[in-house]
Amino acid sequence: MKRTSRDIRTANRYEVLRQIIAKSPVSRQELATATGLSLATVATLVGELLDLGMLTEVGFEDSAGGRPRGLLAVDASGGALIGVDIAETYVRVELFDLALNVLARAAEDMRPGESRPEQVVERVASAVEAVVARAGGGAARVLGVGVSVPGQVDRDTGIAEYAPNWDWHDVPLLDLLAERLPHPIHLDNPLRACTVAELWFGAARGRGDAVVVNLGTGVGAGLALGGGLHRGVSNSAGEWGHTTLVLNGRPCHCGNHGCVETYVGAPGIMLNLRESGPDSPLLRPGDQTATIEALARGAAAGDPVAVEVVRDTARYLGAGIAALVNLLNPEVVVLSSWVAAALGEPLLRDVRDAVARHALQRPLAATEIVLSPVPGDPVCLGAATFALEGALDAAGLRPVNGATAGRRSVPAEPLPAEPVTVRPVTVGSTPVEGRTAPLS
Amino acid sequence: MKRTSRDIRTANRYEVLRQIIAKSPVSRQELATATGLSLATVATLVGELLDLGMLTEVGFEDSAGGRPRGLLAVDASGGALIGVDIAETYVRVELFDLALNVLARAAEDMRPGESRPEQVVERVASAVEAVVARAGGGAARVLGVGVSVPGQVDRDTGIAEYAPNWDWHDVPLLDLLAERLPHPIHLDNPLRACTVAELWFGAARGRGDAVVVNLGTGVGAGLALGGGLHRGVSNSAGEWGHTTLVLNGRPCHCGNHGCVETYVGAPGIMLNLRESGPDSPLLRPGDQTATIEALARGAAAGDPVAVEVVRDTARYLGAGIAALVNLLNPEVVVLSSWVAAALGEPLLRDVRDAVARHALQRPLAATEIVLSPVPGDPVCLGAATFALEGALDAAGLRPVNGATAGRRSVPAEPLPAEPVTVRPVTVGSTPVEGRTAPLS
Repeated sequence: MKRTSRDIRTANRYEVLRQIIAKSPVSRQELATATGLSLATVATLVGELLDLGMLTEVGFEDSAGGRPRGLLAVDASGGALIGVDIAETYVRVELFDLALNVLARAAEDMRPGESRPEQVVERVASAVEAVVARAGGGAARVLGVGVSVPGQVDRDTGIAEYAPNWDWHDVPLLDLLAERLPHPIHLDNPLRACTVAELWFGAARGRGDAVVVNLGTGVGAGLALGGGLHRGVSNSAGEWGHTTLVLNGRPCHCGNHGCVETYVGAPGIMLNLRESGPDSPLLRPGDQTATIEALARGAAAGDPVAVEVVRDTARYLGAGIAALVNLLNPEVVVLSSWVAAALGEPLLRDVRDAVARHALQRPLAATEIVLSPVPGDPVCLGAATFALEGALDAAGLRPVNGATAGRRSVPAEPLPAEPVTVRPVTVGSTPVEGRTAPLS
Repeated sequence: MKRTSRDIRTANRYEVLRQIIAKSPVSRQELATATGLSLATVATLVGELLDLGMLTEVGFEDSAGGRPRGLLAVDASGGALIGVDIAETYVRVELFDLALNVLARAAEDMRPGESRPEQVVERVASAVEAVVARAGGGAARVLGVGVSVPGQVDRDTGIAEYAPNWDWHDVPLLDLLAERLPHPIHLDNPLRACTVAELWFGAARGRGDAVVVNLGTGVGAGLALGGGLHRGVSNSAGEWGHTTLVLNGRPCHCGNHGCVETYVGAPGIMLNLRESGPDSPLLRPGDQTATIEALARGAAAGDPVAVEVVRDTARYLGAGIAALVNLLNPEVVVLSSWVAAALGEPLLRDVRDAVARHALQRPLAATEIVLSPVPGDPVCLGAATFALEGALDAAGLRPVNGATAGRRSVPAEPLPAEPVTVRPVTVGSTPVEGRTAPLS
């Protein structure tokens, strides 16, 4: 449980790569300043990443009076990463280069009731095939596939232990996926994927402790503490949605009453709407996505019922987030996932007001509450980041070309013996945090 | 915010000393195994601690076939540490040797209404003088005084920012104490003191993530994550008592309603008792301590009202602790402080039942809930541990004899130029975790 020197080396390797992705091109000296590591440590880690084919030297910059300093950048063509976001209503797959620019996308809608593991795996496999085909040469060397699946996941055994919205219990999802996907697979859940996306590319990057509040059908709070994801002793930390917010309140599928999720998850927000405006045309029975979108449009247009529902939702959310602020004293709280993205600024404004009413002064003063700045699907990006971390861990100090699957990966099909020349194809390329995609 | 190599060295130095205190006499090899550090790192850190006068070599043990291995123990006479527990109703002071055995104790009761900072400081100063006098030669070289004060504390500036039960706002407590105490002073709050006591000497030692639930007049949840105290970005993490448990519930002095503290803090438990048995002879109006003690005796004797009140309190507590278990996925939850100590096993049993009803299966299965095993006053012990950590930080690599006050300490009076020979005096010596006090 304690951090070993191996953990520290791994964390430092992540941190150096994270800074290079964020700041390319960047010198070793700038990396040492940004990470707080010694120049010698940075030089060693950079050397490893160069050997792995993940970086390139891209020229020199004159330093005042001294020797010109070598500049480093991510070698975008050093490999491809795939992120898979399995949700209750859709499967989305994105293929990224090593700088985490999107090279190709595919999405499939899940039909209501389509929730058997085999059906889900079929959707994933066909979407992965589609992105690999679309990316063409860009997908020649897939270093790994990160897969996010809702609920409680054992990343070591690859078992989806409990997905309440589908009533899944102990589904051997990794094995099922491995039958269809010839790549190392890294399984985890959307909460941790969103959190890792914020840590590498979003509002938590380079910040102190952060809480990523994930607002979707389900609700969670991913914890990025001390620069790393807090997983807890059995990798289930962040299950904030089942915190009692109202004693003896609304029934929850977890068996308890009054859970946060029953008030601020998408179905809970639909209930809030039903209570405020039983006849509101905003309500699309049976369709969470359409209802949340209608609510967002209504709130933007000043529809009184929509404004009231957003405020009510923010009131519940604010009480819950204030408790997180008091307990964890984070530097930043990020509102993430599709419900937060849809309700946007009006929700953020009301949440800030509600948190200010509930939180203690000292932690409140230290905390900023923001909407996730990660563009596109943060779950896909985070899942791909798990694949990137997995490739770094698996490769260790060996070159990527000889990489085998990591400890947490299934045995993969052998990589193609003669890798196709990488020819980046921009298909819906997404700039991350305002960077344009440096594909060539 | 990120862990620097300096932080890691500090954490490793703590961990090695912690293991030596726990396992004396112990070899460097055993320390390497227990800490997960390399033998070379352990040897370096042990060398520093030997130079500081904190350790002694106590002989050799034969290893099978190899060279005899040197055994290390804490040099109990290497200095004294003082822990001060300022509570709403009392001031307790304990003087410890370097193995954290109690050499002397003093306690003063606070009269109702006696809550001005000058009055509190006067109590602290006279109790510190009393323990120094009682410990005689054992107090010759006081390395530091750790002071725990309720509420929100800025340990860097030494300001007690907010103590709700006394209505203190921005009291410059460190400055006031420094006028009376000629030692380096380390200010913090009872929550963090209890947590550090568990981390060094109690149920969190050598464990993964731990939550220390502090049940007194106020209520908090200290977080020991990854082997260290989680302080948050402005040192206020752990303010769990003001989590909303019942929306629109009991009014709280923080200005909100339905906070955890209003149901499970000592005054909240008195309210629970008033609701269950308005005429119960267990109720001692205006006296928290006597009421909680009467309740404990009643529950042990099977008094139906007492049993019901403990169960009700555990029901509230269980809902709150289940949320912590879901969110943080800790290895252990420790019930600490005087209310937990008084209500003991009956409370523990009911809390375990309530948490099992509320928590999710996966984190629940990974979590053990225990009463604090720290004997005596964990707040005094934890406060003295802050002084120990401060001495380690301040001394850095310099010998303790030349130690100056740490960054977070006030300038101290010069240490006596000719230290009195240390002559340990056992006054109410407390074995910690079953160790007998190795005073000579």
